[in-house]
Order: sequence, then C-alpha cells, then structure tokens
Amino acid sequence: MNDTGSHRKTGPGGSSALWGGRFSAEPGEVMERINASIDFDRRLYAHDIGASKAHCEMLVACGIVGEADGEAILSGLDRILAEIESGTFAFSRRREDIHMNVEARLTELIGPAAGRLHTARSRNDQVATDLRLWLRDTIDEADAALRGLQAVLVDRAEEHAASAMPGLTHLQAAQPITLGHHLLAYVEMLGRDRGRLADARRRLNECPLGAAALAGTPYPIDRDRTAAALGFDRPAANALDAVSDRDFVLEFLAAAAIAASHLSRLGEELVLWCSAQFGFVRLGDAFTTGSSIMPQKRNPDAAELVRAKTGRIVGALTTLAIVMKGLPLAYSKDMQEDKEPLFDAVDTLGLAVSAMTGMMRDAAFDTGAMREAAEKGFVTATDLADWLVRERDMPFREAHRVTGALVKCAEEAGCDLADLPLEALKSVEPGLTEEVYDVLDIDRAVAARNSPGGTAPERVLDGVRSARERFL
Amino acid sequence: MNDTGSHRKTGPGGSSALWGGRFSAEPGEVMERINASIDFDRRLYAHDIGASKAHCEMLVACGIVGEADGEAILSGLDRILAEIESGTFAFSRRREDIHMNVEARLTELIGPAAGRLHTARSRNDQVATDLRLWLRDTIDEADAALRGLQAVLVDRAEEHAASAMPGLTHLQAAQPITLGHHLLAYVEMLGRDRGRLADARRRLNECPLGAAALAGTPYPIDRDRTAAALGFDRPAANALDAVSDRDFVLEFLAAAAIAASHLSRLGEELVLWCSAQFGFVRLGDAFTTGSSIMPQKRNPDAAELVRAKTGRIVGALTTLAIVMKGLPLAYSKDMQEDKEPLFDAVDTLGLAVSAMTGMMRDAAFDTGAMREAAEKGFVTATDLADWLVRERDMPFREAHRVTGALVKCAEEAGCDLADLPLEALKSVEPGLTEEVYDVLDIDRAVAARNSPGGTAPERVLDGVRSARERFL
Amino acid sequence: MNDTGSHRKTGPGGSSALWGGRFSAEPGEVMERINASIDFDRRLYAHDIGASKAHCEMLVACGIVGEADGEAILSGLDRILAEIESGTFAFSRRREDIHMNVEARLTELIGPAAGRLHTARSRNDQVATDLRLWLRDTIDEADAALRGLQAVLVDRAEEHAASAMPGLTHLQAAQPITLGHHLLAYVEMLGRDRGRLADARRRLNECPLGAAALAGTPYPIDRDRTAAALGFDRPAANALDAVSDRDFVLEFLAAAAIAASHLSRLGEELVLWCSAQFGFVRLGDAFTTGSSIMPQKRNPDAAELVRAKTGRIVGALTTLAIVMKGLPLAYSKDMQEDKEPLFDAVDTLGLAVSAMTGMMRDAAFDTGAMREAAEKGFVTATDLADWLVRERDMPFREAHRVTGALVKCAEEAGCDLADLPLEALKSVEPGLTEEVYDVLDIDRAVAARNSPGGTAPERVLDGVRSARERFL
Amino acid sequence: MNDTGSHRKTGPGGSSALWGGRFSAEPGEVMERINASIDFDRRLYAHDIGASKAHCEMLVACGIVGEADGEAILSGLDRILAEIESGTFAFSRRREDIHMNVEARLTELIGPAAGRLHTARSRNDQVATDLRLWLRDTIDEADAALRGLQAVLVDRAEEHAASAMPGLTHLQAAQPITLGHHLLAYVEMLGRDRGRLADARRRLNECPLGAAALAGTPYPIDRDRTAAALGFDRPAANALDAVSDRDFVLEFLAAAAIAASHLSRLGEELVLWCSAQFGFVRLGDAFTTGSSIMPQKRNPDAAELVRAKTGRIVGALTTLAIVMKGLPLAYSKDMQEDKEPLFDAVDTLGLAVSAMTGMMRDAAFDTGAMREAAEKGFVTATDLADWLVRERDMPFREAHRVTGALVKCAEEAGCDLADLPLEALKSVEPGLTEEVYDVLDIDRAVAARNSPGGTAPERVLDGVRSARERFL
Repeated sequence: MNDTGSHRKTGPGGSSALWGGRFSAEPGEVMERINASIDFDRRLYAHDIGASKAHCEMLVACGIVGEADGEAILSGLDRILAEIESGTFAFSRRREDIHMNVEARLTELIGPAAGRLHTARSRNDQVATDLRLWLRDTIDEADAALRGLQAVLVDRAEEHAASAMPGLTHLQAAQPITLGHHLLAYVEMLGRDRGRLADARRRLNECPLGAAALAGTPYPIDRDRTAAALGFDRPAANALDAVSDRDFVLEFLAAAAIAASHLSRLGEELVLWCSAQFGFVRLGDAFTTGSSIMPQKRNPDAAELVRAKTGRIVGALTTLAIVMKGLPLAYSKDMQEDKEPLFDAVDTLGLAVSAMTGMMRDAAFDTGAMREAAEKGFVTATDLADWLVRERDMPFREAHRVTGALVKCAEEAGCDLADLPLEALKSVEPGLTEEVYDVLDIDRAVAARNSPGGTAPERVLDGVRSARERFL
Repeated sequence: MNDTGSHRKTGPGGSSALWGGRFSAEPGEVMERINASIDFDRRLYAHDIGASKAHCEMLVACGIVGEADGEAILSGLDRILAEIESGTFAFSRRREDIHMNVEARLTELIGPAAGRLHTARSRNDQVATDLRLWLRDTIDEADAALRGLQAVLVDRAEEHAASAMPGLTHLQAAQPITLGHHLLAYVEMLGRDRGRLADARRRLNECPLGAAALAGTPYPIDRDRTAAALGFDRPAANALDAVSDRDFVLEFLAAAAIAASHLSRLGEELVLWCSAQFGFVRLGDAFTTGSSIMPQKRNPDAAELVRAKTGRIVGALTTLAIVMKGLPLAYSKDMQEDKEPLFDAVDTLGLAVSAMTGMMRDAAFDTGAMREAAEKGFVTATDLADWLVRERDMPFREAHRVTGALVKCAEEAGCDLADLPLEALKSVEPGLTEEVYDVLDIDRAVAARNSPGGTAPERVLDGVRSARERFL
Repeated sequence: MNDTGSHRKTGPGGSSALWGGRFSAEPGEVMERINASIDFDRRLYAHDIGASKAHCEMLVACGIVGEADGEAILSGLDRILAEIESGTFAFSRRREDIHMNVEARLTELIGPAAGRLHTARSRNDQVATDLRLWLRDTIDEADAALRGLQAVLVDRAEEHAASAMPGLTHLQAAQPITLGHHLLAYVEMLGRDRGRLADARRRLNECPLGAAALAGTPYPIDRDRTAAALGFDRPAANALDAVSDRDFVLEFLAAAAIAASHLSRLGEELVLWCSAQFGFVRLGDAFTTGSSIMPQKRNPDAAELVRAKTGRIVGALTTLAIVMKGLPLAYSKDMQEDKEPLFDAVDTLGLAVSAMTGMMRDAAFDTGAMREAAEKGFVTATDLADWLVRERDMPFREAHRVTGALVKCAEEAGCDLADLPLEALKSVEPGLTEEVYDVLDIDRAVAARNSPGGTAPERVLDGVRSARERFL
Repeated sequence: MNDTGSHRKTGPGGSSALWGGRFSAEPGEVMERINASIDFDRRLYAHDIGASKAHCEMLVACGIVGEADGEAILSGLDRILAEIESGTFAFSRRREDIHMNVEARLTELIGPAAGRLHTARSRNDQVATDLRLWLRDTIDEADAALRGLQAVLVDRAEEHAASAMPGLTHLQAAQPITLGHHLLAYVEMLGRDRGRLADARRRLNECPLGAAALAGTPYPIDRDRTAAALGFDRPAANALDAVSDRDFVLEFLAAAAIAASHLSRLGEELVLWCSAQFGFVRLGDAFTTGSSIMPQKRNPDAAELVRAKTGRIVGALTTLAIVMKGLPLAYSKDMQEDKEPLFDAVDTLGLAVSAMTGMMRDAAFDTGAMREAAEKGFVTATDLADWLVRERDMPFREAHRVTGALVKCAEEAGCDLADLPLEALKSVEPGLTEEVYDVLDIDRAVAARNSPGGTAPERVLDGVRSARERFL
C-alpha cells in the first residue's frame, strides 16, 4: 500500500476514492482489502496504458476530444508508463484498480483534461480490453515456451531413435519400443496444446473498446480504428457480451490445464525413471535436491513439482467456473476474481514448462538399463503371436492363446521365452521352428513395427522430420 | 447382465473371459463390477462396428486377411449391428467391453475367421478410434442444438429490437437497453461455444487405428485407407500418443463446461425475471411447475435446472482431469473412467440446451414491466453526464461529479431526475437547460447509443442480420 | 417410464401431473426428462415410506388425523413398500419424484384419506428427511466397509511386522522400513476417514420433518416425536435452514473424496509394486486382467481403477459445490441435482473399498524382492550419520556431511557403503571403526528405529494391538 | 529474495545450499523458483521456531543433547524469532524453506552446536508439525470470526423477530416469513461450519514430531513430552502416516469451502435485496461502491465478492485433491503444493467473513418494502388450504386443488385472494365463510406458524435464545 497524501484530490474530510462523491462514509479497511484489485491488476499496466492511448487517438481523430487535450493525455500516459517501469509510481489501494490509479495520476500530471480520456468508455470495456491484450501476449509467450520444449524433445528423440526401452501399459511390459518413439508422443501432445492456445488467441482477439458500460455509447466513435490500432481482428459484435463474458479466460485456463496434465504425465515418468527400480534416467544436478537427514538422497524435486502443479491450474479453472456460474449480465464485481487465478495459472505453467525443458535437456538416459528392462517381461510375446498369424496363417485369437501358454511355460521355468528349448515350444505348438528365436530379439521386434507412426527407428526419424516441419 | 450360457466358448469349469487363459481363478463379482465397462461403453457399438469394418476392408485390401474371411467378418458385423439395434443382442459383463462383446459374438456367428479381425490392432487403438468417432458425431449434434438455440434467440431479438429494459450491472440499474441487445449477447456467447466445439472436432479428427497397442505393427497396413474410410483427416502421427491421450475428451468437456456456464447465466436471469419482483417474463406452462403444498406457485424449474446442470459438466471435467493427472504412458486402466463423465456431460448439455431452447421460444416477455423498470433507478444519469461533456465541453470526470450530485438531489426529493424542476438542476450546475429533459427520456437514451454493437434498435437489427449470416 | 393410464386421476384432456391443476399445457417431453427425478430418487423409497409412517403416526397422536385414516395410510404405505420391493410398483415420470409416486399410489389404494398424509409437511422437508435417513444408513455401511479394509490391513501388517522393504521418499530409497509399518500408515488414514464419516453422521442427524415448506406449520405437531421415531437426535432448530441446505451432502462428499484420495495412493503403490521393476507384490488372479493382444500381460486393473475413481468422487463434490453456490433460500430446484452425484459417489466409494479389500487380502508380497531392494540405495546412510552423532558426539549437520562424502565414495566405487574397506572409511572420517559395519545392516537399522510409532518390528506389533483396540 | 553473501557458509566455488555437498552443479534460477518455498512458508516461522524449541527441550531432557548446547539453541531461536518479527531477518531462497533459513541463521549465531537441533527429526516431521500448529491457530481464529458473524446475525434476528417478508422458494413467493427466521437459518449453517472446523481441529491435533523422515528414530526420544509441550493431544501413532498425509489440510479446505458456500448464498441474497426490484436492504456506504461512468450506481461490491470468493476456496480444495491423488508414500515434493492453496483459502475466508459481518451489522433493512412484497403473490394460499383442512376436514390434497382454483380466479380478476368477494369464493367452494379473510392476513399467517423452529415471532425469539446458548 502506497497511498500517500500527496495523491489525494479531495479536501479535508473528503474521500479520495474517485467514485465516492455521493457517499458519506469512508470505505473501511475490510472493504479496501476485499474490493481493491490494484495489488494484482497492476500487472496489466502496460496494456491498460496502451489501450488508453489507442482510445485517446481515436477520440481525437473522431473530433470527440481536441488535439491539444489529446496530446496532453498521450504524453501524460507515456510519462506514467515510464514511472511505473522505473518503479517510481505510487500505487494506491484507495484508487482501487489500475485504471483509476493511472487516471488519477494523469489528473495530477495534466489537470482536468485528464477527465476527457474516459469519454465513451467505461471500466467495463477497459478491463475487458486490457485483459485480452495481456492474455494475447501471454499466449504468445506460452506458445514459444512450449515450442522450446518440443524442440528439446525432438532433439532427444532423434538422438534416441534406436534406443530400446520397454513400452509399458498398466506399468507392465507390453512391447519393446524406442525412447525416441516415447518422446515424440509428448511432442504431439504439446503440438495440440499449442493448437488449443492458438485457437483461444484467435477467438479472444476481438476488441471490446467502445462497448462502454454495456450498451455502447452515443459518441460518434470509430471502433474499427481502436481495434486495428491494438491488433485486434475486429470489434466485438455486441457491447453487452463484450463486457460480460470471461469465456476467453476459461478457455485459456482449460488449455493450460490440459497442457499441465500432459506435463504431469512426463513428470510422473521422470520420477519413476529416476527410481532405483527403474534407473532409466539421471536428472541433472540443477534439477535434483538432497535430503536434510538422508545423505544419499537424490530427489527429482522438479519433476515432482511439475507433476503437482497440474492441481493448481485445474484449481484455477474450477475457481473461475464457479465464479462465473449463474452471474446475470452485465458486469458483476464477482468477475474481478478472474485475474488472480489467471495470473497464478500463467506463472505456474511457465515455471513448469521451463523446468521440464531444463530437465529434458540435461537428462542423462541410461540406455543400457532401458535395454535390459526391455529384454525382460516377455515383451516380444506379441511378436511371436504375429509370427504365427503371418507364417502359420493362424487366426490372431488362436495365436494369442498359444503364446499365452508359452509364456506360462517360461514363467514356470523361470526363464525368458527365448530361453525355452525348441522342444518345449513344439510341445505347445508343433508349428514352431528355429525361426521364432529371431522374432524374439528386441531390436528385430522394434524394427519390425515400422507402420506409419510406429516405433521402428526409421519411423522415429520420419517423426522427427515431420515434427520439425510442423512445429519448429 | 445378460450373460447366458449359450454364449460361452469354454468348457466346464473354464472361464468365459476371453483374456483369461492363463489365470486359474474366476474374476470375482467385485472385479466384474469395477472392471467391466460394457454397461456404459455399449453406447459406442455403432462406431465400434463401423471402425471394425473399415479395419477389415483395409486388411483385405492389403492382403493381410483373405477375401473370404473378410466377407464373413463384414457380414457378421452387419448382423451384430442389426442384433444390437433390434435389442436382441445379449451383452455380457464377462466379456468386459463392447469390443469383446462384438468379437465374441462374431466368433459365434462365423467361427475362427473372426479371430483374424484383431490382426494389426489392439483394444487400445480400437477404443481411441471408437471414442473419437462417437464424439465427432456428438459434436455435430451439439453444434446443431446450439445453432437451434441461437436461431430462437435471434428471432426473439428481432422481435424485441426496440423493447426497452433496464441494463443492469451489479444487478443495479445502469443504463436503459433493449431486450434484443440483451438476447444477442447470448447469441455471441453461443457462437464462441460452437467455435470451441468446431476446433475440438478438427483437432480430434486423426485416426488412431494402426497404432495397435502402443508401438505400431509389423503388418503392412495402410493407415491412410482406414483414416479416409472413417472420415478422419489423417492418421495420428505417433502410435504411442494415439492410444495414450484423452486430451480430446478434456477439450470437449471444457468447451461443454463453458457453454453450460453461459446457459447458467441465462437460467439465472430467467429465474430472476420470473420473480414477482422483476416480473419481466412468464415462462410457458410446459417449463413451469407447481408446488405440492403452495397452490399459487409457478416455479421456473427448468431454468433452475439449467442453471444447476453447469455443476455436473464442470464436475465431469474435474473428474477426468484428476483421472489423467500423472498417468504414465501408454494405456492405463484408469482411462476407462473417461466415458461415464463424458456421456453424462453430453446428455446433460443436450438436455440443458433443449430446455433453454423451449423456454426461450415460449417465453412471454412483459415489455410493459420491463419499460417501467427501465424508467426507474436514474438509468439515464450517464446520458446527462454525456450531454454535459458534449454540449458544455465539460471533462467527463467533472460531468460525472455533477450528475452524482443531481442524483443525490433526486433521491432526497424521492423522485426521478426528470421530475426535478429546472431551478433545482441549475442550483447544482448553472449550465443545465430545458434541453436536458429530452436526454432523460428512455427511448431517446436507447436510440442514442448507436455505436457499432450498441443497444439502439437499429444496431440490434444490424446484429440480427449479422448473426444470421455468421451463425445460421 | 411406467406411466399407465390406469394411474391417472384426471379426466379427458386433463393433466395427470398432480400439481398441474392450474396449467393448461401438458409438460413436454423435454421438461419431463429434465424435471422428473423418479429415475434416481426412487432409491430413497424405503426411507421415504418410513418417514411418512412416522409422520402419520405423529399426526394421529396429535389428533390432526383421525385414527381410521391413520390406519389406512399406514397399511397403504406398507403395501406400497411391498410392491416396490417385489418389483410390481409402476413408477411414473409424470409423477415426478418418489414422494408423488408413493402418494399417488396411496390414493389409488385408500382413496381420499391419502390426501391427509401431506398435512403439515411439504416435499421440501420430506426430501430433506429422506436424504438424511438414506445417507445415515449409507454412512453406516461405508464405515463397516472401511473397517473391513482396516481389518485386512492390520492382519497383513501383523504378518509382515518384520518384513524389510525400502522406505521411499520422492520414490527414492530413504531408510529401510517394514511392510507392517507401511500398511499401518493406511490403517491410520482410514481411521481418520471413518472419523470424518462419524462426524458427518452426527451432524446430519437432525430431523427436518415439520419444517414444512420453509416456515413451519400452524398444525399442533410434535416434532420431537417424529425425530425420535426416526432415530434423529433432535428436530432441526430452524425450519428455513432445515429445507434449504445440503451441507450434509457436501460434507459427506468431502469425507468420501479424502478417503478416495487415500485409496488412490495405495492403488498407485500397488501398480508400482506390480511392475517388473519393483516386483514387490503379485495381485490375485481375481483382480488382474490380461491383454487382448499381448499374451504375457498381467495388468493390475483393479488397482488402477481404484486410483482413478478418486476423480469421480472429487468430481461429485465439485458438482454439488457449484450447484449450491449462490442459491438464495429456501428450496430451489437446483438442489435436485444433489442426488445423482451423491449416489454415484457412494457407489464408487463402495466399489473402490471392496476392490481394495479384496486385493489386499489376496496380495502375495514378495518379501525377498523387497528385502533385496531395501539393501540397495545406501538406505542405511542415516544410520551411519546417527552413529557419528551418538558415538562421536558429532553435530548432526557435520555427520550428514561426512556421510554424504562416504556415499559419494561408494557411488564412485560402484558398491554399497558396507562394501567400502575400513581404510576408505577412515580416509573420510578418522573416527570410524569396525563397529559401523553393524550399523549398516538392514535388520539392525530397522530394529533400531524403535521410537513410538517407529518402524521396528516391536513397534509395528504395538501398532497392530493399538489399531485393533481403536478401530476393530 | 534476500540472499546476501554474508549468510553463505561455504567456501569458494562451493554451493550454499545446505543439502548440496554431493552435487557439482549450482541449482539454476528455474529450479530455485520452482523448488524454494521460503517465499510462502516463511508464514510458518513462529510455529517452526516454537516446535524447534519444544524439540530441543525434549532432546536435552532425554540426554540426547547437552544442557549447554540446548541453552545456546534455545536462545538462538529466540533471537531469530525476534529478528523475523522486527523485520531484520534476511530470508534466502537458496536456503529453500523456513526450516533451512532458521537453521542456517542459528549456525551463524551459535556455531556448530546448531547442528544438534536436527537430531532425531527430519524436515518431513518438522513441516508436518509446523503446518498443524499453524492450522490449529488458524482454525481458532476462523471460529472466532464465524462466531462474530453469528452474533451479528442473532442480534439482527432479534431486532426483526416480527418483521414480515416473503418467504421464497424458486425465487417465487411461497409463504410469509419473518426476517428474523431468515437470518437464524444462517446462524444454524454457520454453527455447523464451526462444528466442522472443531472436528478438523480435534482430528489434526496429533504430533508428528519424532516420526523423523518416515520410520521413527533410534534416539531415545520422548514423543509424549514434545506433544504435550506443543498442546497436541497425543503423538501421531504411525511415523510413516504422520509425514505422508495432508488429509488435515483437505479437511480444513472442505470445511472452508462449505462455509464459503453458505456465505455465497447470503451474498446472493444481499445482491438481490439491494436491487431496485427487491429493495429490501440498503448496505452501508462502507460496503458499496459507485461507478466510473454511471453516477447513480450504488453497487453491492462486497456482497458480490463474498459470493465469488467461494470459487477460490473450492478451487484450493480441488488443487490439493489433485496434488495428493495417487502419491506413493512417504513424502513427495508434490506435497509442498499444500501451502499456497491453504494460505490463500484462509485469507479468502477471513476476508469474506469480515466483509459479511460488516455488511450485516450495517445493513438497513427496509421492512416496509419487505412487508409490501410479502402481501403480494398469494403467499397466504397455503393458509387457506390449511384452514379448509382444519375447519372443513378436507383432505389436504383436495384443499390444495380448491385453493389453486381460487388463486386462478384472483389472477384472472387481477387482485389478491383477500380482495375476492365472498360470493366468488363460495362459487368455488361453498364451505368458505367470512372467517377466511382473517386467515389471509400476513401477520396472522406468520404468527400461526408457531411449530418449533417455525417463523412465528415467538419462535424466532426462542431461536435467538437458543442460538445464544449454543453458539455465543
């Protein structure tokens, strides 16, 4: 709280709250704390000032505000921007929000002409504009960050196009795959995440300015001009809708929550892979911590935190969904609760993507341990079934049954399928020959799955090329 | 549960569960209840069979399955489809899911050749395909339903392009608006809702078939062929991703939740407007109920239920977000929990849109009551302030202060602004003249707000035309 | 839908909906689907009838209804109960809910006297009573189920009081613990879950009957009598509150969600422990499934589903929290949306607890694999540090640093701490002697942690005794 | 961030992170931001220091730490507490959390003896203890705040024990009630909210200290002593559970969410009642704001914000439910995400209760407007039906039908029931007499509902007395 006496415009006993002319009592401390948004919405300052400048230029161009007043307003706004960026601006809770803080300072700087800036607008369309502008920039940053993570994953996938590992379903060995194949799965997920953000950006890119409180305005304004000046695709079509909805925030939060869900899965995998039991990866020291009591610990804290952060972003989405439920049109103060969950979700997603990018860049995969794990667990049993289908023209279901019986034999013998002698194989299915031992080889099994999108090294390299074209 | 002995393929004491060859114990009752999905995933039957047919035709075309077997499979599948649609198909929980129920029946109908259908696929890519196909059709239905609601709203907006009502913010009278303006706000919201669904549809429209369990397949399949046959834009690029993710369900649920949030707001407004205090609307008898104890009641039950249903759809989104959090790749059984929330959300949204469409079609607006309300509450105070800015070149902030003082006068006198005598006006601001009484007229105030997207009747009619072009 | 003409009481063209006397239009199909609750609230039938009987007896005792009418009503209600339980009752959506279905049938059975039952009550207090009664019984069942799971866990803990396993934090080996210690942790969690349910039960156990619509009633009723007859602790103190709130459902859902969160953690551990990498447990066949494509699979489906079901219960809580947000008093139809999430959460929790109980009863722990894992990962490093503190009076922080250096030595040598020669130990810390090799033994390390609540076998057996006393 | 060089204890090139002895790389900026919790967990400082003191005293009493060292530690901790409270303590992100910040400073102050404090404990039991202590105090504060709101509501209920208002269901006039009756409904809700908090407090009041990392400790500690010193009821029974669970936070968040849901309902009612259409209440100036554009506005911002804040608290609950889902035991870093949602929910609830208390204390109810509204809408129709039951021995259902017909007559005549001439009444039901006009009087209708918990003024005064006894 920075409210110093020098910013007050009212006389002795008067209220410094700008809207307070009609009220006899001072807003209390509680009200100031629950009502003022300046502690968080100051984050919109640059977009608020930018939108005010565009609005002012339009008012001058349309003859609603005189050129001299317009000049004064614009230079006053530039000075305020500089003050904020240099840290000399005195934010005040009494002035409630970023809009009032800026306007009050403008009045101090240029006098009554400042009062002309608020012509043909309202805080309702102002905040809707600011928040869209801010979110648009944020989406661009999030997109770049996700692209950066994709780039790292694609590079690591190329590096490990042929590194065998066990492909798991239900955390049980299913079929051998390559690490490159695994990493490319996340590249696709992140690609869709970026697609959702791009769609949200396109959809929000309509300009509320000129909607005023909810009904439009009687001034002869040029909404196309402000929309174009601020990089919007068009003015919002309906003034009431423009100030009443926050679906663009909900849409962003949903996209962020889905992206966070993807990151949580990779986080979980890193935690698993770092365990002594898996031992598939060693994270860089920068993303690992020790224990205050157990000297041997090497904890994958960052991976755990990325996993956990999902909760926070889904929580932000839940928060705003509850806030917006059942609100009658137009603006209600409830909608002020859109910003803190949004800001927190943005920061959280940014941090999670950064941490994951760093972890994946530095991660030392233990390809030996992965290969060893891939060789256990009868992961080539499907290959044996497929061989029976192809070479013995057996219906798949019958082949599946036969292979199941062979796995049982091996389990009872305490060995792998490839370790069973041929006679043991033949006792279950006479059609089996020496050839099948080839099928049970991990590298052959991996290379064989060369259908488009498959795990074979050549397909992984195709995927790397395609991902670079589509995403990077 | 319909599991009759005649469908069992195993002998005495054997398990009829198809995957059970290796297990010695019968799955217990609890396991059957927690594990079997057939009670709900049977809803996918048509898409499951359609996808199987496309897969079979591709296998034949690629020489992986012989023509005769292919014919048998296709005609068997057609027969199963007919059985299900005629209600004669015996679903079995023992066969777990729709895929196994169909395949088991196919085996009964055509014998071992049925076993060839599962070549080069897995239940993992099968269910991912089925669910995408089902959701794609569902989105088309939801889009049509939302379009229908838009059509009703646009018609009512045209009818009420000039009907005055109080525009509220904070549920306080703000400025007079037209009912048409208000209704068009929802048309815009629903337009964005449809846009979100269209984006989700486009993004999910990639074919998982051929991903098999997670790694692709060694069979020489033609994924482009199945993708095209099923109307997908392309095969999914990465086999592991194709079977592991459910972001397309999350994205749909998020879009549905946002749409439901919009509906909840209109529901709330209907409840308010039906109250004796507002009296703005009388809902049709079909959407109103009485009381078991209070004979005079006329309850807006449908509007309340539409408002409440938001909870259910957001709940479904939360559910799946929690399910997917931190799941390692590839398929885990947790993902079976995607369907019930999805199905419930789809049904809930459909019902809410239908009810809202019916309510809005039948609603009898009391334009007299609306106008009367619009004339109270000093709603033209802004117009007075704007007049001072325009006609007396007063900065807006000063005009705002003056008008506030006039409102206080009127409040103290217990009358409207227009009822204050001119001398009273002049005592506050000498620049006021007789002219201002015109400004205080509701219809003039409404007509004056004719900026693009504004509430003036001419702008509402523009909005109606534009909405018809863009949405209908 | 079972609405047959014979149940209709109105003449040609009339509405059969009981509240419909004043309405000219038939409720449409959509309205019936969105409005009627009989498809789900029929589940309350026994409690609805029980509460009606208590209410009727009170009305007779207070002289509000004559004895003959009272007798007729009671025997009619008994007959309806029998009809429902035998499956011959014809439920009708037209009659909206369980209350109207019962009352309409009562009218058919005993004629106009049936109309006296609804004296001094409303559906508002009726449903609030039914739901509390139903939930009270449900809580008793849930408590018994959780107690059953505790009993299994306590037995398994006793069996494995001395079975060593690695205690993990961050999924990294921390210190050796016993399996019994681990299982008892869940016994405590479930104990608190039961405590929450017991608190919820106690708090909801106030009788709404007599609140009528919201205001109480002018009839000289005896609320203590109905409260006592139905096993409530007392009548609800305020009539408006009694019919308006559903916090008792929210409280139950929250308790269920927390319990489900505990189960999800054990589910996750079972999934991990079933993996080839951990290999700590083999689940019974009854709770494991195979794969349609991979014959070797043994998937811990039930454990995964228990883990996933958390989502559904938290989703139910979110749903109702959204429904109740911002509802003005008293009853709104929104509140009808309390039942489906509650019923689903109850069923889900019941299924999850049953499955977990079965899994834990049958689980075959591989104590050899657990011990082997416990011997890796320098898990006795803390013991070494503690030895330095105790025997060499070293501050803990210094001991922690010394032990860290020793772990680094062992890592570089590729061996365990106990495999380092004494001179290597002494080169890091001259105060080390042969004695420390004892400290590094797993069983001694486990036995040493014998503080109350610690992992030492004797403490686990204490815990088993204490748990039996407190919980079983 | 306050990390100054003077606090670093390591030499050139070394890491200042206390656990970092074994790592060669510096934790990067990203890691510091995602990993360090000091920015928020510093809020636990007083409880952290208090718990450390109790732990130290126990270590000395048990002979584990010498008296001199113990004295040094205790006085060092006191000095640190003073430094923090006076604002001179330099918090450092490098030292991660409050525990490490305190311990590092202690080392600076008293040298190596500081290292003895961490004997027989871990950060795992330390943070679990701190958070319980903090939450216990927080619950006490929340309880007092809710009690304060109850006190205001009870006083206002007494004042308005006989003030008539329309009792609404579905926002439709149902029956006349008193404002006192309405306000007491919230007193009951808040009473249950306090009950939930008290139960949560009791359940969390077990001491984790001595659980150490997860397994207990080999030191001969006295857990009863530390538990008693810190006001805990007993030591936590199982060391692994004590450090692994956060159900006590979830339980608090659920209780807070339910309380917030109650507040949101009162917030909604205030918003409705402040509208021109209802006009039931005028909030104090301190809790109302104006508009930047519409000079006549008097917005119930605080009531809207209280309504909206529910979202945030439910969001916090969702967040932590997601974080905890599926976490294996024991501590995972994910659990660090418990604090920010908890702190935010606590602050939010506190602010909402304060604002609501202030609003309700200052609210000026317009009893005239309430009474006028109560006289409309046929709210005494039930009284008429009840009269027919009592005086004419008509079954309630038949009386309900008759009254419905009378309401229809009055609606068609455009008047109230009491304005219908007797012959009109008799044409519908011959048994009606002049007496019924008495029944239709609002005050008589209210006074008649004098069943326990009913709306009659005498019952409201009973309720006031009872509430004061039970709650204040």
